[in-house]
Amino acid sequence: MSTTKPARARIPRDKDNDYTRDLADRRREFVREKTGAALAHVGQYSFEPSMLPGNIENFMGVAQVPVGLAGPILINGEHARGEFYIPMATTEGTLVASYNRGMRLLSESGGVKTTVVEQFMQRSPVFSFDDAQQAREFGAWVDEHFAAIKAAAETTTRTGRLVNIQQYSIGPLRNLRFNYTTGDAAGQNMTGKATFVACEWIRKNYPGGANYILSGNMDTDKKHSRVNMLMTRGKRVVAEATIKGELLQSLMGIDAKTLFWARQISNAGAFLAGSANNGAHAANGLTAMFIATGQDVANIAESHAGITYAQLLDNGDYYWSITLTSLIVATYGGGTGLATQKECLEMLGCYGNGKADKLAEICAAVVLAGDTSLASAILAGDWVTSHDALGRNRP
Amino acid sequence: MSTTKPARARIPRDKDNDYTRDLADRRREFVREKTGAALAHVGQYSFEPSMLPGNIENFMGVAQVPVGLAGPILINGEHARGEFYIPMATTEGTLVASYNRGMRLLSESGGVKTTVVEQFMQRSPVFSFDDAQQAREFGAWVDEHFAAIKAAAETTTRTGRLVNIQQYSIGPLRNLRFNYTTGDAAGQNMTGKATFVACEWIRKNYPGGANYILSGNMDTDKKHSRVNMLMTRGKRVVAEATIKGELLQSLMGIDAKTLFWARQISNAGAFLAGSANNGAHAANGLTAMFIATGQDVANIAESHAGITYAQLLDNGDYYWSITLTSLIVATYGGGTGLATQKECLEMLGCYGNGKADKLAEICAAVVLAGDTSLASAILAGDWVTSHDALGRNRP
Amino acid sequence: MSTTKPARARIPRDKDNDYTRDLADRRREFVREKTGAALAHVGQYSFEPSMLPGNIENFMGVAQVPVGLAGPILINGEHARGEFYIPMATTEGTLVASYNRGMRLLSESGGVKTTVVEQFMQRSPVFSFDDAQQAREFGAWVDEHFAAIKAAAETTTRTGRLVNIQQYSIGPLRNLRFNYTTGDAAGQNMTGKATFVACEWIRKNYPGGANYILSGNMDTDKKHSRVNMLMTRGKRVVAEATIKGELLQSLMGIDAKTLFWARQISNAGAFLAGSANNGAHAANGLTAMFIATGQDVANIAESHAGITYAQLLDNGDYYWSITLTSLIVATYGGGTGLATQKECLEMLGCYGNGKADKLAEICAAVVLAGDTSLASAILAGDWVTSHDALGRNRP
Amino acid sequence: MSTTKPARARIPRDKDNDYTRDLADRRREFVREKTGAALAHVGQYSFEPSMLPGNIENFMGVAQVPVGLAGPILINGEHARGEFYIPMATTEGTLVASYNRGMRLLSESGGVKTTVVEQFMQRSPVFSFDDAQQAREFGAWVDEHFAAIKAAAETTTRTGRLVNIQQYSIGPLRNLRFNYTTGDAAGQNMTGKATFVACEWIRKNYPGGANYILSGNMDTDKKHSRVNMLMTRGKRVVAEATIKGELLQSLMGIDAKTLFWARQISNAGAFLAGSANNGAHAANGLTAMFIATGQDVANIAESHAGITYAQLLDNGDYYWSITLTSLIVATYGGGTGLATQKECLEMLGCYGNGKADKLAEICAAVVLAGDTSLASAILAGDWVTSHDALGRNRP
Repeated sequence: MSTTKPARARIPRDKDNDYTRDLADRRREFVREKTGAALAHVGQYSFEPSMLPGNIENFMGVAQVPVGLAGPILINGEHARGEFYIPMATTEGTLVASYNRGMRLLSESGGVKTTVVEQFMQRSPVFSFDDAQQAREFGAWVDEHFAAIKAAAETTTRTGRLVNIQQYSIGPLRNLRFNYTTGDAAGQNMTGKATFVACEWIRKNYPGGANYILSGNMDTDKKHSRVNMLMTRGKRVVAEATIKGELLQSLMGIDAKTLFWARQISNAGAFLAGSANNGAHAANGLTAMFIATGQDVANIAESHAGITYAQLLDNGDYYWSITLTSLIVATYGGGTGLATQKECLEMLGCYGNGKADKLAEICAAVVLAGDTSLASAILAGDWVTSHDALGRNRP
Repeated sequence: MSTTKPARARIPRDKDNDYTRDLADRRREFVREKTGAALAHVGQYSFEPSMLPGNIENFMGVAQVPVGLAGPILINGEHARGEFYIPMATTEGTLVASYNRGMRLLSESGGVKTTVVEQFMQRSPVFSFDDAQQAREFGAWVDEHFAAIKAAAETTTRTGRLVNIQQYSIGPLRNLRFNYTTGDAAGQNMTGKATFVACEWIRKNYPGGANYILSGNMDTDKKHSRVNMLMTRGKRVVAEATIKGELLQSLMGIDAKTLFWARQISNAGAFLAGSANNGAHAANGLTAMFIATGQDVANIAESHAGITYAQLLDNGDYYWSITLTSLIVATYGGGTGLATQKECLEMLGCYGNGKADKLAEICAAVVLAGDTSLASAILAGDWVTSHDALGRNRP
Repeated sequence: MSTTKPARARIPRDKDNDYTRDLADRRREFVREKTGAALAHVGQYSFEPSMLPGNIENFMGVAQVPVGLAGPILINGEHARGEFYIPMATTEGTLVASYNRGMRLLSESGGVKTTVVEQFMQRSPVFSFDDAQQAREFGAWVDEHFAAIKAAAETTTRTGRLVNIQQYSIGPLRNLRFNYTTGDAAGQNMTGKATFVACEWIRKNYPGGANYILSGNMDTDKKHSRVNMLMTRGKRVVAEATIKGELLQSLMGIDAKTLFWARQISNAGAFLAGSANNGAHAANGLTAMFIATGQDVANIAESHAGITYAQLLDNGDYYWSITLTSLIVATYGGGTGLATQKECLEMLGCYGNGKADKLAEICAAVVLAGDTSLASAILAGDWVTSHDALGRNRP
Repeated sequence: MSTTKPARARIPRDKDNDYTRDLADRRREFVREKTGAALAHVGQYSFEPSMLPGNIENFMGVAQVPVGLAGPILINGEHARGEFYIPMATTEGTLVASYNRGMRLLSESGGVKTTVVEQFMQRSPVFSFDDAQQAREFGAWVDEHFAAIKAAAETTTRTGRLVNIQQYSIGPLRNLRFNYTTGDAAGQNMTGKATFVACEWIRKNYPGGANYILSGNMDTDKKHSRVNMLMTRGKRVVAEATIKGELLQSLMGIDAKTLFWARQISNAGAFLAGSANNGAHAANGLTAMFIATGQDVANIAESHAGITYAQLLDNGDYYWSITLTSLIVATYGGGTGLATQKECLEMLGCYGNGKADKLAEICAAVVLAGDTSLASAILAGDWVTSHDALGRNRP
């Protein structure tokens, strides 16, 4: 780092062959010269840079993020069935241990039921008109020509399918939300490309033409939003379990009634806070799995949103569900094929085609394990003052 | 993975010396037996596991996340001054290139001004009473005894300072939001511990006692929320730049007027969507930096929230600011001292004490670079149909 | 008011003929005995109570709310065309005058263009199942049986039409959002009844049965919500105008550039605040019209939501639009046929069948008038320090 | 209504004596000429127009809104104590009857406990600077000079007190939220005037000057917002009751367990919907009372927000609370002194000085009555299919 403004130095590149150990070495050397940082460990990686085009530019080495092992967690899903061991890449102490504890609770209670409810990846272009009436008429035209628009969009992809186009109007603007299924890829690029071609088709075929921007900020890519929670982005996946009351007591040191009493408080707090999730800490487990398995970790912004819905059962058991509304995962494309990332997917039996639903189910199950563990910990032991505190004959 | 439920297998552990290469090897071998995944690359790491206690449990290896080099970006902050080269750990192609382009635009425009506006890390316990009147009286008592509560809280920490306690009432509940400064640590654990001691002090000293839960879901830890956007979580940091109109044209292929026209559309879309950020993709740049520098990446949930505020100036330049309301970064503690993570912080001159504000400023500047780049790309070249589309004598 | 608890006194009623002046008199007398309040003015009304069944219970008199006259406002809508005089029932000084001023501005600028973009009234029952998979399968069955469900729903109404059923899943729950068109009635009761019959049909025909609650709090009736802003409740209606720059200066004492500069600030503030409307004060004009014209005034909760979208044009004019996303108005049913209410609808040419779209357009135009007036007032005259304050060569 | 654009006709006015029956007559005659509407009933009112200055402009008559009588409701508040009869102005059938039923339930259960937790009316000017650092320094200066700013603000009002100034930063902007107590007035005008004088004081005394707009859209006046829910606008008031299980069964035909089961569903639905209130229909009761008692009915936009917090008690009773976060009521000023309005306030023992907290408590109690009634109705009788539907040994 220099403190005066020099001529802009150029990061070493090679137009013909940029993904080599040599280039990575030269970049680290460049950094060392510019900043004094040696980057010795960053330069230690076990794969060939030639696998990286499409994943990164100006490659200079790796971040080595520790991976802990949790599990097994018993999952009774449609795609994920059996016991799974979970790779969690994190630097936050207790995270792996806490999730591990929740996995035991859920597994001993009979396992986690998981369901992918629906899935859409989207791109939301916005078309601009002279007034709202024109925009509305355009919207009707889009509905009428859905088949042709779909055909145009799907020329660009073998796996992407345009399911529907939702419409949101603001003044003279018409936001179109193109909803696709994208196979086992997360699909942001696929849907961007398909939507661009569809928009070009619209522009050429709509009488009088139609001006658009490929994103009007309603997608909302890499951002939590209400529209994504409501309408789904990526996969909407539910994990649910009926937790035995006696296991809560024996393993977690808390009784189901207290847990349910506290759930009312958590619901109220999350509602007042305007929170993206009324559960505990979905982002923790998801981030650790996303880093380990080569997901686009920035999608934690969207993926951590969720809704906890629970009921205390008459028999003293505790029904607990988490619905992740915007979980974006892939088992193909992106970072999933890289060295350690692929291995971690393989641990889960989730590498490659036909595995994305399975991975989504595992992610949701892990989130549920983490939420049960943290919620119990907050109430048990020294997190609360005493069990007397929790008499339920008072609010 | 097995498909029937066996007796729960136990992950290898060693109570006395769990952080060794041998244990890691045994865990990978255990995974190989259970799942068939070899984990060859996961087992390749360049540091000693003995540095890991406090960062992870059940360590078995690493995720190798590619790091690209971007920059320089010229920053004129209070803490970050000069040109910086940015390590970005990601597997998403074009991300580094796109940010790099924005960094050039901002640097050639004179650089990014950055300001840490305020900072608070919090823990929000909730106290429960028989009715709202008791809760209100308790709240008044807390205000009156702030000094003693602060003293109790601060017995647990050398660097944490309790700045204030905000109060939010719901029925018979009183949510207290303890706001701390936490030096160069992110401070979630520090504030948790301090608040626990403070709550115990309250419980013992409040006439008649007081029952509480250490978190009522209003923190909101690892979750985006409105309360965090409004009241700050971590650091509230602004990056702002006045971008020269001619550079927009020459470097980005777009004119300032069009960009500002599109800003109106993005504002409307984000508002309708209920988005956590009316900008473009803060999460991308932040996530890449968080992974590289050992931050708690799950905090992307909170940290990606922000507000873009822009004005088109009379001289044709474009004033652009991003305010990150909940940026959680550390230069001390957590994962910051690990092998590659420390090196990446050193690249930025940000390792160790007294550097967290500087890192926050760099993060915000990088976000601004990425947002200018993506917003321009959406409008320029083949992302839109033609410049004719954007005539500004129509809405 | 008594301060001890007596046996519960009974409000006078007559099972056979409860809507008479006599009963009203007896109830006021009852109040006078219980509370000492004479209710002399409350007892002054000019219509026969016999018209009130279906509008109120325990009738005892009226609130006399002053009505002011504003206008004319020139509207170039699809349903509302020409100049309109607006009855505004309010007790807030300056409200009528301020709206009147905005009406003049818009009328002299050529009038307000108005468009009803779409309309849906809804009821959202929730079906509960054993798990999420059952809920998802139920959802698919609902889609497949839409025609039959629609037929069942529509047996209950001549004017209501079930357009679609949106589905939102949470754990084992399936929230169905039945979207109807309801002719010139607001339609809350109509849709409630139709949805009940539809749900009963579902319950009887779904294999194995299906349990439901008629509302799962996602309607969201009488409550602002994000889902209503996004998906429309009542009518989604746009009012837009291109305001001449010179009129802004001559009538409002403000220039378009300053107004647009301030719009950026208002957008940012509303976004951070998490506001239901980034405009000025839609609720004021709507409430005054709702009271005057016999609307369900509690629907202000939903109806005041909106999105302002504006652009500064190259010629110095100001394009301004407001999109009301959830405007609930009726020209038939509810309070529209009562004495003064019907007269006020007649003033607008909006009483009876086929007029609801027209009324919606007028409402939106009035909101736009009020927002232009207040936004100008805040900036002009003594609301700001000086025009120097607003130099636009600074952010 | 004409369909071509004539020269703008002028509504009759008299600069010297505008508030007379004669002027009102002339205006209605004007309307009759322009629109054909006779306005016979609108012209029937029982008070002298001379009382109206400050309440309305261009007065031409009244809306006669039917008032129903509900009650008694037993309230055990700090300010409201005893049984109250409630005037409800509405045109929505069943509303009065439904609230009445809830009042009986709550009264027979021992009454409603009510508490005004805190109260603030606000105005939020925004100051604009060259950059965020200047804005932050300005913020610190404001904190340091709070006493002087408070003194300046309070020169304009006898009853208003500036309690604190919250600060929210966005880029180079500093939003100040001036929080006042305003006695028995709602206080929007009072706080507007006081804040203007305070801002002028700041502008003159801040070194180098300071530019501002009196509202930056963060108040948020006449608009629901998250900031108002969190930080209170008007009064934050709680109504709570412990409802006897046997009364739920005998009066409402529903058991407490089912009601609590459904509460979980309502919480989840409201959370997903992004609703302003997770209760049932606060806006209904509040609107009816606001119209009857001369409140600013447009404030329903803010006032209907709330949080329901409930617990099922071990003895089978049901603890239910509603927290209205932004209830804006007055017993002095505005429309409270008008003819019928004052009478309805007198019914409640709430007219004049020192009564606003009492009115707020009554409002909250009424909301609770309405919510218990509607929530029970949705579950009982023909709103649900059968009690079998609600077996609680399933989620």
